[in-house]
Amino acid sequence: MITLTSDFGLRDPYVAEMKGVILTINPNATVIDVTHEIEKFDIRKAAFILASAVPYFPNGTVHLAVVDPGVGTQRRAIVVQAKKGFFVGPDNGILILAAQNQGIEHVYHLTNSKFMQPKVSSTFHGRDVFAPAAAYLEKGVQPAEFGPEVKDPIIPAFVKVKYSSGSLTGEILDVDGFGNIITNINEKDMVCKEGKTVSVKLTGASIKLLFGKAYAQAKRNEPILLIGSHGFLEIALNQASAAEKFYV
Amino acid sequence: MITLTSDFGLRDPYVAEMKGVILTINPNATVIDVTHEIEKFDIRKAAFILASAVPYFPNGTVHLAVVDPGVGTQRRAIVVQAKKGFFVGPDNGILILAAQNQGIEHVYHLTNSKFMQPKVSSTFHGRDVFAPAAAYLEKGVQPAEFGPEVKDPIIPAFVKVKYSSGSLTGEILDVDGFGNIITNINEKDMVCKEGKTVSVKLTGASIKLLFGKAYAQAKRNEPILLIGSHGFLEIALNQASAAEKFYV
Amino acid sequence: MITLTSDFGLRDPYVAEMKGVILTINPNATVIDVTHEIEKFDIRKAAFILASAVPYFPNGTVHLAVVDPGVGTQRRAIVVQAKKGFFVGPDNGILILAAQNQGIEHVYHLTNSKFMQPKVSSTFHGRDVFAPAAAYLEKGVQPAEFGPEVKDPIIPAFVKVKYSSGSLTGEILDVDGFGNIITNINEKDMVCKEGKTVSVKLTGASIKLLFGKAYAQAKRNEPILLIGSHGFLEIALNQASAAEKFYV
Repeated sequence: MITLTSDFGLRDPYVAEMKGVILTINPNATVIDVTHEIEKFDIRKAAFILASAVPYFPNGTVHLAVVDPGVGTQRRAIVVQAKKGFFVGPDNGILILAAQNQGIEHVYHLTNSKFMQPKVSSTFHGRDVFAPAAAYLEKGVQPAEFGPEVKDPIIPAFVKVKYSSGSLTGEILDVDGFGNIITNINEKDMVCKEGKTVSVKLTGASIKLLFGKAYAQAKRNEPILLIGSHGFLEIALNQASAAEKFYV
Repeated sequence: MITLTSDFGLRDPYVAEMKGVILTINPNATVIDVTHEIEKFDIRKAAFILASAVPYFPNGTVHLAVVDPGVGTQRRAIVVQAKKGFFVGPDNGILILAAQNQGIEHVYHLTNSKFMQPKVSSTFHGRDVFAPAAAYLEKGVQPAEFGPEVKDPIIPAFVKVKYSSGSLTGEILDVDGFGNIITNINEKDMVCKEGKTVSVKLTGASIKLLFGKAYAQAKRNEPILLIGSHGFLEIALNQASAAEKFYV
Repeated sequence: MITLTSDFGLRDPYVAEMKGVILTINPNATVIDVTHEIEKFDIRKAAFILASAVPYFPNGTVHLAVVDPGVGTQRRAIVVQAKKGFFVGPDNGILILAAQNQGIEHVYHLTNSKFMQPKVSSTFHGRDVFAPAAAYLEKGVQPAEFGPEVKDPIIPAFVKVKYSSGSLTGEILDVDGFGNIITNINEKDMVCKEGKTVSVKLTGASIKLLFGKAYAQAKRNEPILLIGSHGFLEIALNQASAAEKFYV
């Protein structure tokens, strides 16, 4: 199984071209889209969304992710061998958050042209470099065959959650399609119990929110704080967009 | 085969997480998206779109649909066994229109945690409850194994089409991506013949429209009334949006 | 393998209905979306996007494409047998650019109702005519079985690239989701070498651009001219939209 994550959108032929390349090399691959609607060039957001989706896929899945402002430059292409699967994409941090969650075993510099398209463009390595590598990996080619080991892959920087004088400080990782504001504060960071009211500071203003469990515990259009399905603290409105109310 | 219908959009990892869960349990399942672009929380629209798509899938298909404002509350999760297939989702009406079209045989309350994710969140039953149930159903688990029978599933309310003193009255079910205004008046309700001019009242104003057959029978940008591909009466413009002209 | 290209969008059940029809006839087919986000009724754009994607699919792939303002009228439905695959859709030019790139062997008028849905609507031949034909083609039905040969399929008109007194003149084929402005001037047309500065006239104004290789050769938000992944000359900005700056 191969998953695809990108900022290509679904209007253009780019995603289909990657799938065509994969299925030409490996007709039996099952190819699943994570998303192609990452904000253009937003590597951190792609890293977060990939890391969210990966735990739900079977062991051995190959995850191809490409948000690639440096395509055609000296930035490396890499193959990551992690504890439960493989990651293929540019060495710009996009893969590493998800791979670290599994445990990284080896990172390889993807240089072996045997596992690339015959002609490699300078503008679309998703199709010409990463898609064939993913197809060959899924077919059983060993990660070490793709090129020399890399010891210093680029790690994406996220703010560490801090606890100080009764306050937790984190950062906003994402605003999802429902307008839920998703932070990097996880379940274990939360010292207070469900059912308590919590003071939340967001872009200056301070609001008091119930720390609850389900969206519908709040009245319609009313806010609530809960641990969302990613396992992170989020600020939500019941049946409306928290981002529109508090963040935009 | 399993179909998916939701209001999750394609930007977030939610649809991929459902697919990952399904394919982990049942690697041979073919998973087809109906749509994930239902207007957020619009259960009736999801019910209509699901009912439109279902007749084109093979017998035995499992249809998972989730528009779920009540997730994490007391609303039930259900499995519907219908004449030609299965339906899995929240008990809020989303499944019932499509299931009734096939003929409902049994409805079960999905309570057996054996067929759920090990950890069930309060915010994402699509992934934690419905996806595993669909995967197991498709694998051959009997509907009755999921939980006790339900005798009173929630039925979505649609206006009944009325015929009175030469007039048909129905409701608008949907405006599609082309701007076609789709009503719940079906082919059999229509007493007049193709080729006639019909008086149509929409949001007050009355317009005269040809009751035709194909969009291109009208001039470009001109309106026409026809039985659309859903089998329902629709108001359309040739190569333009009827909704923009008559409804917004 | 069957690919799908349309202007149906992903919100409505139309794409799913085509897939349901295909998989009912041919449960083993692998169905891949090229795109369903073609601008409504834009046949030329669909032709370009289809032609871009097709070379990356395996030999023998069946390509179904449907942007079909003439549905329900006298416009023909066709099956094209080309050197490396098959094309199914309306005879309005959408298929021919991609098929010509492979080499067209035969074109057939799709009239044999044996290979259509039992009931054919006048509004949705994608589902009722083209989807079943694609499913049967992929299953091994011979193209000639679908109907009589067509000698005059409609050819989409594109401006020929002209070279005159040191200037190349072409047309804009597409603006992609990144805002790259893609012309029909290809690699071989370009007489000047990479690294040169070229004068470009676009909607009147004249700009001087580096003819480079990779987007990141320009500074962020700065323009560059390069041969893109389609093999055509494009005007791009590094990490921003050239169309927004130069074309809208």
